[in-house]
Amino acid sequence: MTLKFSYFGTRGIGEPIRMLLTDQEVAFIDHRFSWEQWADIKPTMIFGSCPCLTMGDKEIVQSGTIIRHLARIHGLNGTNEEETIFIDMFYEGVRDLHATYATMIYQNYENGRQPFIQDVLPEHLARLEKLFRTYENGENFVAGANISYVDYVLFEELDIQKILSPTALDRTPQLKKFHEQFGERKNLTEYLKKRAIMKTPVNGNGKQ
Amino acid sequence: MTLKFSYFGTRGIGEPIRMLLTDQEVAFIDHRFSWEQWADIKPTMIFGSCPCLTMGDKEIVQSGTIIRHLARIHGLNGTNEEETIFIDMFYEGVRDLHATYATMIYQNYENGRQPFIQDVLPEHLARLEKLFRTYENGENFVAGANISYVDYVLFEELDIQKILSPTALDRTPQLKKFHEQFGERKNLTEYLKKRAIMKTPVNGNGKQ
Ligand SMILES: N[C@@H](CCC(=O)N[C@@H](CS)C(=O)NCC(=O)O)C(=O)O
Ligand SMILES: N[C@@H](CCC(=O)N[C@@H](CS)C(=O)NCC(=O)O)C(=O)O
Repeated sequence: MTLKFSYFGTRGIGEPIRMLLTDQEVAFIDHRFSWEQWADIKPTMIFGSCPCLTMGDKEIVQSGTIIRHLARIHGLNGTNEEETIFIDMFYEGVRDLHATYATMIYQNYENGRQPFIQDVLPEHLARLEKLFRTYENGENFVAGANISYVDYVLFEELDIQKILSPTALDRTPQLKKFHEQFGERKNLTEYLKKRAIMKTPVNGNGKQ
Repeated sequence: MTLKFSYFGTRGIGEPIRMLLTDQEVAFIDHRFSWEQWADIKPTMIFGSCPCLTMGDKEIVQSGTIIRHLARIHGLNGTNEEETIFIDMFYEGVRDLHATYATMIYQNYENGRQPFIQDVLPEHLARLEKLFRTYENGENFVAGANISYVDYVLFEELDIQKILSPTALDRTPQLKKFHEQFGERKNLTEYLKKRAIMKTPVNGNGKQ
């Protein structure tokens, strides 16, 4: 059954899912559309928004739902209930940061950028750094020795925050090390190279 | 092991969790605090926000994480992967509505109330109504015959939208019927009676 992942031609909230599929070597059609094409697609979407994962005649929307489903079927959801909780909690924490970031990017870039970099971002990162140290990170994943879906989500989040503020990770050494090492995974390195050539925009309005 | 659920003395994003625990007869300490008390609690919270579920020496924060955990351990997460996906997707759809509602309530009540009631809310409800009809609703739950965590989330969301706009559900008969029937569950009826006496505020700023 062919898998198709549909989202705008940006990184946005779709990128961690693309990276998970690519890194885990799950074959999928990487369907990217423009804002103009979206006008025709929007009415077909369950909630009028994307991303959407199509599997045969089944459609899954909602970025959280898609990534948790993929996590369950590809063994990326923790090895016991305690890990699953931890991963989920970490995911939601990153999502809170991303929501705050997206509000700044789309609604208040000119005036909000500096306060975000100076005050909001460091506070979020400090909390994530502390939480990241919960598990012994022998292999440097969020939940310790085993990779999970939140690693893709965290990697992408740190990556875009570094674009906004190149020194963002300087006060969170564990997150910085995680970001460096995770980006060196073989499949991801290749993907990141291609992405650099494609110049995939981070956000829909060109701000970053 | 005593379970403790900590949240403000409002309904907010904590109420569906309280209802799930109550209805499922899971014993728990219903810890509610004021904004003044919160000043001391906030620094102890993993992400500086609540709700929080405490189980012995373990703390779970993030409303989504808490409710998904409770769902997994109490059999409220669907009976197969397809149902789990559907429930998750429905949950995220309701969450999108709630986020839009909360932004209006906290940031734009005076000017935003009417447009929200007239345009935004009907669109969200129409989508949820359509999705609700996916499963044959013999027992009138979101996922058909079996109750799941999203039923509590949907019930609470419909309940607060009816407070904002008493006729809100008139154009979505399935959701209306669900709301009526679900509120008649024995344990919930009792809870709702007590809540009416306690006059629990819907939101932290007194708007509703
Ligand atoms: N809660 C949803 C949000 C989806 C969403 O807002 N998607 C945006 C792009 S990031 C969208 O489709 N915007 C176009 C539109 O709403 O017309 C999710 O996590 O998937
Ligand atoms: N994503 C979090 C959001 C938590 C959140 O924003 N909680 C609010 C109350 S609804 C809070 O703690 N506000 C007080 C504060 O941030 O100091 C969740 O779903 O639990």
